[in-house]
Amino acid sequence: MSDHVYSLSEIVGSSPNSIDEAIRNAIAKASRTVRNVEWFQTQEIRGQVVDGQVAHYQVTLKIGFRVD
Amino acid sequence: MSDHVYSLSEIVGSSPNSIDEAIRNAIAKASRTVRNVEWFQTQEIRGQVVDGQVAHYQVTLKIGFRVD
Amino acid sequence: MSDHVYSLSEIVGSSPNSIDEAIRNAIAKASRTVRNVEWFQTQEIRGQVVDGQVAHYQVTLKIGFRVD
Amino acid sequence: MSDHVYSLSEIVGSSPNSIDEAIRNAIAKASRTVRNVEWFQTQEIRGQVVDGQVAHYQVTLKIGFRVD
Amino acid sequence: MSDHVYSLSEIVGSSPNSIDEAIRNAIAKASRTVRNVEWFQTQEIRGQVVDGQVAHYQVTLKIGFRVD
Amino acid sequence: MSDHVYSLSEIVGSSPNSIDEAIRNAIAKASRTVRNVEWFQTQEIRGQVVDGQVAHYQVTLKIGFRVD
Amino acid sequence: MSDHVYSLSEIVGSSPNSIDEAIRNAIAKASRTVRNVEWFQTQEIRGQVVDGQVAHYQVTLKIGFRVD
Amino acid sequence: MSDHVYSLSEIVGSSPNSIDEAIRNAIAKASRTVRNVEWFQTQEIRGQVVDGQVAHYQVTLKIGFRVD
Amino acid sequence: MSDHVYSLSEIVGSSPNSIDEAIRNAIAKASRTVRNVEWFQTQEIRGQVVDGQVAHYQVTLKIGFRVD
Amino acid sequence: MSDHVYSLSEIVGSSPNSIDEAIRNAIAKASRTVRNVEWFQTQEIRGQVVDGQVAHYQVTLKIGFRVD
Amino acid sequence: MSDHVYSLSEIVGSSPNSIDEAIRNAIAKASRTVRNVEWFQTQEIRGQVVDGQVAHYQVTLKIGFRVD
Amino acid sequence: MSDHVYSLSEIVGSSPNSIDEAIRNAIAKASRTVRNVEWFQTQEIRGQVVDGQVAHYQVTLKIGFRVD
Repeated sequence: MSDHVYSLSEIVGSSPNSIDEAIRNAIAKASRTVRNVEWFQTQEIRGQVVDGQVAHYQVTLKIGFRVD
Repeated sequence: MSDHVYSLSEIVGSSPNSIDEAIRNAIAKASRTVRNVEWFQTQEIRGQVVDGQVAHYQVTLKIGFRVD
Repeated sequence: MSDHVYSLSEIVGSSPNSIDEAIRNAIAKASRTVRNVEWFQTQEIRGQVVDGQVAHYQVTLKIGFRVD
Repeated sequence: MSDHVYSLSEIVGSSPNSIDEAIRNAIAKASRTVRNVEWFQTQEIRGQVVDGQVAHYQVTLKIGFRVD
Repeated sequence: MSDHVYSLSEIVGSSPNSIDEAIRNAIAKASRTVRNVEWFQTQEIRGQVVDGQVAHYQVTLKIGFRVD
Repeated sequence: MSDHVYSLSEIVGSSPNSIDEAIRNAIAKASRTVRNVEWFQTQEIRGQVVDGQVAHYQVTLKIGFRVD
Repeated sequence: MSDHVYSLSEIVGSSPNSIDEAIRNAIAKASRTVRNVEWFQTQEIRGQVVDGQVAHYQVTLKIGFRVD
Repeated sequence: MSDHVYSLSEIVGSSPNSIDEAIRNAIAKASRTVRNVEWFQTQEIRGQVVDGQVAHYQVTLKIGFRVD
Repeated sequence: MSDHVYSLSEIVGSSPNSIDEAIRNAIAKASRTVRNVEWFQTQEIRGQVVDGQVAHYQVTLKIGFRVD
Repeated sequence: MSDHVYSLSEIVGSSPNSIDEAIRNAIAKASRTVRNVEWFQTQEIRGQVVDGQVAHYQVTLKIGFRVD
Repeated sequence: MSDHVYSLSEIVGSSPNSIDEAIRNAIAKASRTVRNVEWFQTQEIRGQVVDGQVAHYQVTLKIGFRVD
Repeated sequence: MSDHVYSLSEIVGSSPNSIDEAIRNAIAKASRTVRNVEWFQTQEIRGQVVDGQVAHYQVTLKIGFRVD
């Protein structure tokens, strides 16, 4: 992170399988509309429970991207 | 909140009458430009004081909306 | 709060009308099963949005009750 | 809030009816002894429960006033 | 989360293998005694270390369940 | 804290004499109804003042107990 | 804490002997100039170390007093 | 901040010289694409170190702008 | 900070030029009415933006002063 | 954690594959130079993004080790 | 704390008797290997419970020492 | 910050002139004994006041350095 201006956006990704995959899904989705994403910071890890089982992991991220 | 990606935006609404109305004003305004708002989270409740009376309640919200 | 032991429980109440009513609903409901509730502390104020309008205010409370 | 020095005080107001009124009561009371109150920031929302009902809403505020 | 009252409980689950599994273990265990668990919120991720290796991941969760 | 599921409860103990005793009182009381308490975490230290003297120390604790 | 307005002040008390005494010293000192102190909330516990020994415990408190 | 709706964005500015300049750089950059910026709130102050010297100060800001 | 009682006050200073100067302005102003100020702790760094430029840095401080 | 003195160190581990592996890498590395590591506490979960994909998960941990 | 550079270390001390003693034990232990310890800041107060009684108070401290 | 393990240390630097210089002093001092410092994160900004003037700015930093 050198002499640039960066912007932070907050997103929530989800996955039925794992926290790691919820993060990857969120990053992949965000990267379709935002260019130059350089890092993420996890804000919150939650999930839905259905019939006594974890149905979805939901991870809130801040993503940082270069503004040029 | 199922298997989607959501985005969070932070807004401040105000009302001369109540905290509830400041929230409704913020949500109504945001919904004119952002589709699929599904929830809000209150971040801060402040206000302006004029002549020893509350002139405006000001509520900072995060709003969550589905990104399709 | 004198020389007693107290216990804290965390609950979420909701109301389509106001934050105050969401709190009153939560307290009324909790008081049916927990005796001697003496105070509450608001933890979080959120809500659901449907069709660009606040559908429900949701308030997370800690309630304190005397354990005798 | 321009080129002045401000001071912050912390107060607790209460009301049997609503959070909004607890805030207005605190501001009105503070304004009798402190001049030039310009804003408030809500710190905590609590309340007393009597007989399974909310007896008082209690709101802790920081109030900001100009020091000239 | 519509017009219901919910309750939150705090639990700690563990697993020798992963954070995800520690969460699933905690949810599965809680669901044996608590009905209608609908979501969880991760509070803390810790672990035990034995002989320079992670022996257990330990995850503290708040679980939310409907009170009817 | 090995391969078990634990639960956390929040309680408030008090003592006219000291913080340490307020904690011991809370733990002793909780242990009458909850088995297998293994640890506590202090959340808040407050107190009542009467006639310019500390009348009670009040300590809010989370207690962790094994759920088998 | 019923239908009154309260004010909060922040003070630091110290003692060479214990945390409890640092709190009592702060409360006793504050009560000489502030009437109607009703409660305190501990904000921070620190201390000075001299020659490898605790020389003073220093406790920062918020004290709440009735404003009539 | 009167009877308007405001929006908050989070940005990171940097400067090899000072924290103040990192803030001014971020504000200047943001103002090219966002109109009506009215205030900023500092979230985090970090920096890069190269060869044992501060190479860049990096300041994360929330900026508030009027939405009309 | 030895065997004394200290009090903390919260103030906001501002400067069109720098954060350091906003702090110095606040301390200088406070020292006209409060004797024995010994330290400050920065709580928040904000500012006003006018025409896309930083118009004022505003720094909220707690100041600690000896009460004898 | 019985009658010993412990020390805490803060480290950052990374992995291209998962959060769990980033933690294991950090613990393994720390255990080469620090003996008697007994537990870790996760402080922050971040990551690098390259070409719209998560390139590294980065986990900041506090590790606790016995000092004898 | 004048014109020096200080370093902070985090340690956990324990005592079967009191919080004060747990702090003194930690400071005494740290002072055997670290010179010029000048202050401590309490981070967390926990404890172990055995057979329904407090077995150990455990206090996490940051200690500050001069680096010359 | 790529595929390495990093360590974080906490230090306090001071300067009679500015916050920026307090940071530079701390980094310069730390770099004499710690190699490969790559970044810093500001934790707290305080200062000493003497005769109603800022005598020293004191800045607490976490510094991150590569462990190879």
